[in-house]
Amino acid sequence: MICVREKMSSLRINGQPNSGKSHVTFHVTPVSEEEHELNNRVPSRPTPELKFELDDEGDTLSNHNSITALLSSKFRDIQKRLKQYGIESPRFRKRLVSKWESLNYDVCENVLYIKEQEKYKSKKWVTLRWLSKWLVMFSIGIMTALLAATIHFVVEKLAHLKFDLIKHYFDDCAKNNCLYQPALMWMGINLVITVAGAALVTFLQPMAAGSGIPYIKSYLNGVKIPGLLTFRAFVAKTLGVVMSILGGLACGKEGPMAHSGSIIAAGLGRGRINFCNGKSISFYSAFRNDHEIRDFMAGGAASGVSSAFGAPIGGTLFSLEEAASFWNQDLTWRVFFSSMVACFATNFLISAINGDPTKLTDPGLVRFNAFKFDLKFDLIEIPVFIFMAVIGGLSGALFVVMNYKLTVFRKRYLNKNWIKIIEAGLVAMVSAAVAFGLMVGINDCTDKAPFDSHAVTAAVYCTDKKHNSLSTLFLTTPEGCLKALLHDPFESHGPVSLVAFVLIFFLLGVWTYGLSVSSGVFIPSLAIGAAWGRLVGIGVAHLMPENPNLGVNSSLIKQLDVGKFALIGAACQLGGILRTTISLTVIIVECTDDISFGLPIMIVLMISKWVGDFITTGLYDMNVEVMGIPTLPFECPPLCDDLRASDVMSHPLATFKTKEKVENIYRMLKEETFCGFPVIEDDPMAPGKGKLKGLILRNQLLVLLKKKIFCPEGQVPPRNITIKDFRDFYPVYLKVSEIDLSDEEKSYVMDLKPYYNPSPYTVEQKFSLPRVFNLFRGLGLRHLIVTDEKNMPMGMVTRKDLAKFRVGSKRGLVKIEQLKIEDK
Amino acid sequence: MICVREKMSSLRINGQPNSGKSHVTFHVTPVSEEEHELNNRVPSRPTPELKFELDDEGDTLSNHNSITALLSSKFRDIQKRLKQYGIESPRFRKRLVSKWESLNYDVCENVLYIKEQEKYKSKKWVTLRWLSKWLVMFSIGIMTALLAATIHFVVEKLAHLKFDLIKHYFDDCAKNNCLYQPALMWMGINLVITVAGAALVTFLQPMAAGSGIPYIKSYLNGVKIPGLLTFRAFVAKTLGVVMSILGGLACGKEGPMAHSGSIIAAGLGRGRINFCNGKSISFYSAFRNDHEIRDFMAGGAASGVSSAFGAPIGGTLFSLEEAASFWNQDLTWRVFFSSMVACFATNFLISAINGDPTKLTDPGLVRFNAFKFDLKFDLIEIPVFIFMAVIGGLSGALFVVMNYKLTVFRKRYLNKNWIKIIEAGLVAMVSAAVAFGLMVGINDCTDKAPFDSHAVTAAVYCTDKKHNSLSTLFLTTPEGCLKALLHDPFESHGPVSLVAFVLIFFLLGVWTYGLSVSSGVFIPSLAIGAAWGRLVGIGVAHLMPENPNLGVNSSLIKQLDVGKFALIGAACQLGGILRTTISLTVIIVECTDDISFGLPIMIVLMISKWVGDFITTGLYDMNVEVMGIPTLPFECPPLCDDLRASDVMSHPLATFKTKEKVENIYRMLKEETFCGFPVIEDDPMAPGKGKLKGLILRNQLLVLLKKKIFCPEGQVPPRNITIKDFRDFYPVYLKVSEIDLSDEEKSYVMDLKPYYNPSPYTVEQKFSLPRVFNLFRGLGLRHLIVTDEKNMPMGMVTRKDLAKFRVGSKRGLVKIEQLKIEDK
Repeated sequence: MICVREKMSSLRINGQPNSGKSHVTFHVTPVSEEEHELNNRVPSRPTPELKFELDDEGDTLSNHNSITALLSSKFRDIQKRLKQYGIESPRFRKRLVSKWESLNYDVCENVLYIKEQEKYKSKKWVTLRWLSKWLVMFSIGIMTALLAATIHFVVEKLAHLKFDLIKHYFDDCAKNNCLYQPALMWMGINLVITVAGAALVTFLQPMAAGSGIPYIKSYLNGVKIPGLLTFRAFVAKTLGVVMSILGGLACGKEGPMAHSGSIIAAGLGRGRINFCNGKSISFYSAFRNDHEIRDFMAGGAASGVSSAFGAPIGGTLFSLEEAASFWNQDLTWRVFFSSMVACFATNFLISAINGDPTKLTDPGLVRFNAFKFDLKFDLIEIPVFIFMAVIGGLSGALFVVMNYKLTVFRKRYLNKNWIKIIEAGLVAMVSAAVAFGLMVGINDCTDKAPFDSHAVTAAVYCTDKKHNSLSTLFLTTPEGCLKALLHDPFESHGPVSLVAFVLIFFLLGVWTYGLSVSSGVFIPSLAIGAAWGRLVGIGVAHLMPENPNLGVNSSLIKQLDVGKFALIGAACQLGGILRTTISLTVIIVECTDDISFGLPIMIVLMISKWVGDFITTGLYDMNVEVMGIPTLPFECPPLCDDLRASDVMSHPLATFKTKEKVENIYRMLKEETFCGFPVIEDDPMAPGKGKLKGLILRNQLLVLLKKKIFCPEGQVPPRNITIKDFRDFYPVYLKVSEIDLSDEEKSYVMDLKPYYNPSPYTVEQKFSLPRVFNLFRGLGLRHLIVTDEKNMPMGMVTRKDLAKFRVGSKRGLVKIEQLKIEDK
Repeated sequence: MICVREKMSSLRINGQPNSGKSHVTFHVTPVSEEEHELNNRVPSRPTPELKFELDDEGDTLSNHNSITALLSSKFRDIQKRLKQYGIESPRFRKRLVSKWESLNYDVCENVLYIKEQEKYKSKKWVTLRWLSKWLVMFSIGIMTALLAATIHFVVEKLAHLKFDLIKHYFDDCAKNNCLYQPALMWMGINLVITVAGAALVTFLQPMAAGSGIPYIKSYLNGVKIPGLLTFRAFVAKTLGVVMSILGGLACGKEGPMAHSGSIIAAGLGRGRINFCNGKSISFYSAFRNDHEIRDFMAGGAASGVSSAFGAPIGGTLFSLEEAASFWNQDLTWRVFFSSMVACFATNFLISAINGDPTKLTDPGLVRFNAFKFDLKFDLIEIPVFIFMAVIGGLSGALFVVMNYKLTVFRKRYLNKNWIKIIEAGLVAMVSAAVAFGLMVGINDCTDKAPFDSHAVTAAVYCTDKKHNSLSTLFLTTPEGCLKALLHDPFESHGPVSLVAFVLIFFLLGVWTYGLSVSSGVFIPSLAIGAAWGRLVGIGVAHLMPENPNLGVNSSLIKQLDVGKFALIGAACQLGGILRTTISLTVIIVECTDDISFGLPIMIVLMISKWVGDFITTGLYDMNVEVMGIPTLPFECPPLCDDLRASDVMSHPLATFKTKEKVENIYRMLKEETFCGFPVIEDDPMAPGKGKLKGLILRNQLLVLLKKKIFCPEGQVPPRNITIKDFRDFYPVYLKVSEIDLSDEEKSYVMDLKPYYNPSPYTVEQKFSLPRVFNLFRGLGLRHLIVTDEKNMPMGMVTRKDLAKFRVGSKRGLVKIEQLKIEDK
């Protein structure tokens, strides 16, 4: 594992072009001032003003996109200028390596592989492989469902115990004037449990923090994330999410389910579980390569989503959307199968927990479908929904911005482990204190029975069998709170308590997401939206007391209306925060369990996305960006058509000959950080200038050195290595430091011919950037060798070369960012 | 348009290997005996026995896949042997050209293109292009919805008139003994309307026959299908489907809606409508290339499906599944948007037709969602559903086999236009006659009011206000019949009439699909399934009269049960016939409008697919196969890992120099059928052996010749051509015969440099077939140039080179088929 902390550097170029003039003035803020250089605090410097002569016409320059394109091609010039101003600029490195390695989705078709394939060239093997893939997918579905049901059961039981206890003291103390007792008790319970959960995550596996969905999406996009799929992450994630919810944080268990499902899938796929200290159980190794593991992970993530939301189609789409390069019908069916198994098994298990295992009415952990009436909508309501979608988009963007600032602040100042744990405890205590304060302070009494007959209701100061309406929102898990907001009768919650709830829950949601605890953001987003949606619903019900389209009984109408608006509000808020892709739309529609009503939901999701996208990126994308994970977007940035492969490639290259001295290989691996090396023909006339023969990976070379597959020059090279030897080192590869070579061995020669990939993907240097992009996206490439006309390697384009430039525009200013990714 | 009839030839190799021996005996049935060589009837010959020495071991040979792989590599040997036996074998041609051209999804980045892009390098243009794409998608959705609503309205009104008339005579004549009157009238109406519809399709545009979905899928897969997207096809399709349904054929309007939507999309995308005789209206030409048109078509197909089924998500998936190579978030959103607009507008229009435009309860033409009760299911019912799925798979496969035989028979014997029309008329008359016979013969009387209060019910011989139960099934459109089967009360239809209905409708369905009329197969499949599902439901209700899980009132229970089983039966039958992909699953779930019940539906769809796939391919795939359309499967056929690019490429190549004589170009275009020509460096040392410079397309050369972009040698070549000139010839390209050159002009020289694509995709000759396959699927390629180590073109792999081999195994026998595709 490469354990370097990532660093990002950015060059923010703020400038308003002077139309029609031949130069443009830009304010260039160097790296170190920026929030991205979080760990290297450098005092801020005066901002120099740089002039660039741009030879384009005024007309073209009057927009930001074209400037962006021009500037990105002038990045080197800008760097030079910065140097003149004495500002250390982000360096272009020959090659960039980070802790984020890429996945090798491409198959290395070397001699060993072909030899192994020969073995599989019989129907028995083909059938066996096929069957075992389906079997692994089936197991993934079942295990994920088991996990989901277990978490659900444990959380529900313990949360009920906790809140019953608090309610008991609440009701007693309201009479006896000892309300400090439940308050302290509540804060104490939250503190202890949350601190335990945060410590678990922080010390066992920090990758288990947050919802996990940004990581899973990045992995499916093709970035290897160390520690993401380990046993430790599994323990921290699953136990952690139980503790986070019991600790009273504003979070859900749905995101973590997707992560847990992926870990289960990776474990089953690899056929090996690595416990601590290198101890492991190993079952089989047939699927130990990035290609197969990613396929299984798609199934695992789908199963996780499916069992969390009862959304088998949405789960499948969720997986396939990011891994779209690799969509094929066969894989789609397998993913769908595992997703369906997970949904079905979850349904069965939760039905069994609820006492009737054959009833099958709970396909997922969260469902919005308990509406007592059919959800009908009328054309005249659509404008209201659209208005709500705009609000959702705006408040979602606000959520993202606030959380972004907080994340940056956290990375800069709160990066010690103990601070992280204390912060989590603090949030848990504040959550309890605020909830307590609101309940006591607002004292909104209602006699309407809550929707959930098992709900904990505290009277506090209420009399006449009334109860405090906020108690049904706060004395429950966030999921219970969401359900109450969607389904409680019309007059259960007064406008004041709803307004207070929205504000508090919004702030708590922002504060909670990004803590070092295992926590999802779906449920709090939905709850915030449901609360203000309910407010809108109450407003509409008062404005249009007699809605002629909705039957007879007016109290029923109002109740129905409120639930409907709460649902729309929840969708709007979620859309505004997460920026639903098509998969998220399907997930929400599947949760609602009513497809005719899916239409307004889709409309509001789309509009809230548009509004939100206008202001910021979505929460998950923001996460990915802050982490500096080099994910590839779906399409090439606009206006880059004139960039060529030769402009973006890394060069000069380090190459090997087909028969290479061990010493050279060892030195190169030690000195260079390249992950793949072109192998060239040994041309005695022009050394180092031969035609391309293939591509060999760093990992392969390390294994070859470790296994000592070399011999003195002239002798027959040893061949005692199989593809299984390479696989045994998957997924934690060797390091150069683990290689021990004697001086004699260093003088030996290694024959690379059986090991390199003889047909790597190549492009000619004149290839345009958009087409290089398509190749990477379409084939899931990691390395693309750029050749000249004579088929000699000129340079190499890697995923990072494409992902390192981030171009964005914010508030009318263009921003070019270059991820600087450090050496090992 | 290239108007050659396609021919297919196949070599069926039937053999059981003798395990452990060094040779295998195969019965080789030559081409001409096969059903594929439909137009060249040759008397059958004795089957020769051929022995092949296969140097693999017995173990490997004991399975069919490995034999297939071995034999496909020995195809040439087999051909030689066949020649020795005096049998004309299918020839390998240097290059294969058919009426099915491929689409050019790749962008040709020549100088002209780059020059045009420069123009768009400003924010104004980028925004305008972006906006106009969304606008076109919006219009596609609206227009499709308009069309759907119009067809719906016209069909419903006219069908009601027709059946009311027949019912009137029926009821009168049952008393007065003149039943021959309604019978003759019914047959007569059917005959006249159907013959008109068949004539319309046959003479106006034969591509409008059938459901159109196989064609649309092929187009999205990357095959250009001449005539598919023309104005004539639109008229024939839309008017044709109205006439088919009114003509009493067992068909639906859903498949044709997808086709119509695509035509609308292509028309709007191209900005030009070509009427007959070359007259056309032209609006704008910005999107006239295969890339953009295919994107729009994805939106059109999605809108069509969406407005037919009220399934916006299913429609989107339907489009993206085939065009999966090009999935990106932006396109997905646009397709989803147009799909949603179509669904919404259809909903609005149909609600308006039904009298209340703001009610929005009819999102599509077909919905299964009018169940009076929530669809609930119990675990104990799952085995029954699985049993039904197996029946559905088996009967679906039977449907496909029967329809396949019939299609082959039709292609061989019924290929005259007038015969086609007569056959359609005959089917319509038989449909009426059989329905009449069953109604009179079975005389199943019921007093249950039908679900649809507007349904036409005839008494025939029934008395006491009872009506003939079959009349609600036959005196309506197939859609009405489906709805009756799903929703009619429990005792509406007796088992005898249901059995008769299933048998008759199955046979009529088989006979109808493939007629030269515009007709979909969704609805008849669903109706057949719903009928036998109802039978199963009646059986279950009698076996378990007291189902404790389903409430109190037993008659309600039974009614619910029957509808539920009818729905499952319908899904099973559809799954068995069409072999649902994930998109079809979503479509059916969206139609059902109840996602909890989606789970059993998904399960039965999957099982019926598995069962059916075990026996035959699906109906649409069978169609594609019979038409010989070279679609690419999702993955490379198994066990082909050891085939190399050099094994599948076409060679030798016809190449051009960067400056080529007009005479050479003209001659080459005339003599060769290539669609793309590599351009090579002019190496005076080794003529015809230069390094690869680029790729130029036949269409480009024809335009250049037509526009006379050449000059005497040594002069400055003319440059008076823009990218718009090329676009003006889209999509109907020039033919060589339209080029007129004088002898002097032929001696001139053409400079190809500004026009060829300077960076075509290339692979080295050692690339394995699976990776070549991935490139084609992932990037939507048409041409892939195979180069040697020195970057000299060796050969070319085209879509057809990959699609020409079809390997299948049926009843334990291996079949290798090679599409032989004729010259122009």
